[in-house]
Amino acid sequence: MAADQLTIALDANGADAGPAEVARAAALAAAGGEVRVRVFGPVAEIGRPDAGRDSRTPRGAGSFAPGVELVDAPVSIAKAADPARAVRSTPASSIVQAVRAVADGRADALVSGGSTGAALAAGLFHVKRARGVHRPALAVLVPVPGRPFLLLDCGANVEVRPEHLVQFAHMGAAFMEAVIGLERPRVALLSNGTEANKGTEDVQAAHAALAGAAGLTFAGNVEGFAVGTGEADVIVTDGFTGNVFLKVMEGTADTLLRAVREAATSSARAKAGGLLLRPALAGLRDAIDPEAQGGAFLLGLRRLGVVPHGSFGPNGIARAIELAARGVRADVIGRTHDRLAAAGALRRPSEAVATVPDP
Amino acid sequence: MAADQLTIALDANGADAGPAEVARAAALAAAGGEVRVRVFGPVAEIGRPDAGRDSRTPRGAGSFAPGVELVDAPVSIAKAADPARAVRSTPASSIVQAVRAVADGRADALVSGGSTGAALAAGLFHVKRARGVHRPALAVLVPVPGRPFLLLDCGANVEVRPEHLVQFAHMGAAFMEAVIGLERPRVALLSNGTEANKGTEDVQAAHAALAGAAGLTFAGNVEGFAVGTGEADVIVTDGFTGNVFLKVMEGTADTLLRAVREAATSSARAKAGGLLLRPALAGLRDAIDPEAQGGAFLLGLRRLGVVPHGSFGPNGIARAIELAARGVRADVIGRTHDRLAAAGALRRPSEAVATVPDP
Repeated sequence: MAADQLTIALDANGADAGPAEVARAAALAAAGGEVRVRVFGPVAEIGRPDAGRDSRTPRGAGSFAPGVELVDAPVSIAKAADPARAVRSTPASSIVQAVRAVADGRADALVSGGSTGAALAAGLFHVKRARGVHRPALAVLVPVPGRPFLLLDCGANVEVRPEHLVQFAHMGAAFMEAVIGLERPRVALLSNGTEANKGTEDVQAAHAALAGAAGLTFAGNVEGFAVGTGEADVIVTDGFTGNVFLKVMEGTADTLLRAVREAATSSARAKAGGLLLRPALAGLRDAIDPEAQGGAFLLGLRRLGVVPHGSFGPNGIARAIELAARGVRADVIGRTHDRLAAAGALRRPSEAVATVPDP
Repeated sequence: MAADQLTIALDANGADAGPAEVARAAALAAAGGEVRVRVFGPVAEIGRPDAGRDSRTPRGAGSFAPGVELVDAPVSIAKAADPARAVRSTPASSIVQAVRAVADGRADALVSGGSTGAALAAGLFHVKRARGVHRPALAVLVPVPGRPFLLLDCGANVEVRPEHLVQFAHMGAAFMEAVIGLERPRVALLSNGTEANKGTEDVQAAHAALAGAAGLTFAGNVEGFAVGTGEADVIVTDGFTGNVFLKVMEGTADTLLRAVREAATSSARAKAGGLLLRPALAGLRDAIDPEAQGGAFLLGLRRLGVVPHGSFGPNGIARAIELAARGVRADVIGRTHDRLAAAGALRRPSEAVATVPDP
């Protein structure tokens, strides 16, 4: 193992594709030799040979592929109705084992196979908040062709205070600088109008706080239209609104692309057109492919976490592993802390720590 | 004037298309003889002949076209930063005159040329809330091909209480029954998950209240994905989230259709495909055309109001006039009251009336 080789802890449970495909993603990510992956999942299922694709033979815990170590952890809490309770009551679960590996320093970052709620709850319980951070947030890199932006919070905190939104702004900016390599990312606040007096009382207070924040390039309020305008690199909002934002976007894109496909089969003429257009539209489909973005980033804990979308296949999960490693190498946690400290936005030890949010 | 001929008050200021085009929309809507329109706007601008389209000659207040009466009201507050204050300080403005015509019974419903904020503020101030209604709401019929749904509130109230959301549910259901002719519309609550315990405390309380509400077909929580699934006919939410929902949808659709157009000009082969596919895609464009839906409906006042999108042309504004007339004929106001009364959801006179929301 090279001196600077990182280890990612990967929970193989929870993804729609199943544990074997998640393990395959680990093998893909580790193939380059820059990262090792410790996979926590059901060895019996992962080791089973998958006829028709490759010639893996059943094996127990241990080496699975070059750079991939398998730890038997068959218990899954990915579907638990109350993730926080499940985390406390099920220490043997794969997500708790993966998170504890990160908390104990046996791994540098976490990638979860698919359950955001369980990853967040386990992260809060075992890895804990980064020093000075009020609340962790889920951040999603939204794949708009040519101008992706980071949206946070996408669901970790359904209710937030203005000082949380200011911290989200710094967390998002640090991420875009460290992981995406963007200088002076433009941070905007989501509201129902561009004027400073739009939005709820909390949103108005957050606007004022962001406008006066040191070290931020604050672009003011943006509306939902900002999904396509490229006017901001980071958009901050509460986890309820961010979750709705993301799902409306996905639902609209799915509905429209389905309608375009239907239009392209509605007549012989349209079918001919659709065939000719298909290669160009495939480029568009690749450009907005959520798998290319790696999933949701869990920011604000002492270690970085990445939660791929539950629907991702091996390529998307491998991408999540790569982005987690890049975030560790670029020290996104340290940069976030430095930003918050420089801006005077660290939570003071005397301030009440909010109860663990319900993810 | 036929005994059952309705009169719509139309504010000609505020639309991007300009007052003359708004007046032309009135003429279009009135041409069928089923509705009269009283247009409040700048006569000097509206009466000016528009060379190249028709032979209107300049004239003063009075008849403009069959069924259209012109009232000179040149003052516009459509761009006022504080609509509520502008409404109080500018009684001569076209929107206040149009709204007062409705309040005094000289017209049966309001259609505004484009400023939602001014229409809402003037409506609250002069037409007033319907008896037993906590808060008026802006409702938008979202043009999903084959399965349109009504989304409310889209921006009248950035903060709401659970009992407001219950009233929105009845207001939306009454609208879909009366104006769209849908029986037993399925009403859903927007949240960040389908489970009853998802969302803010207020959203959870609203879920419980809706689940127990008499006379409602409650479909439970829906997520932002519901934009394309057809799982609900009415979706209720607070005005902040509804506004973000609508604008994310518009922004995503615009961005994607632009990307499809760009893909269709990216190569000679794609261009040929785009030309063949164009008629089929035009059908899709018509199906999702917001102008066909008439705009936003102002529900919960003593009279119905419709606010077309500021970008609408004469056809969209004419459609808004037709829908306002249809809503009056189908007694959407009376039906809403009956629903609220039957469900025991009327605001009691003893309950505090919230201050006028800032639109």
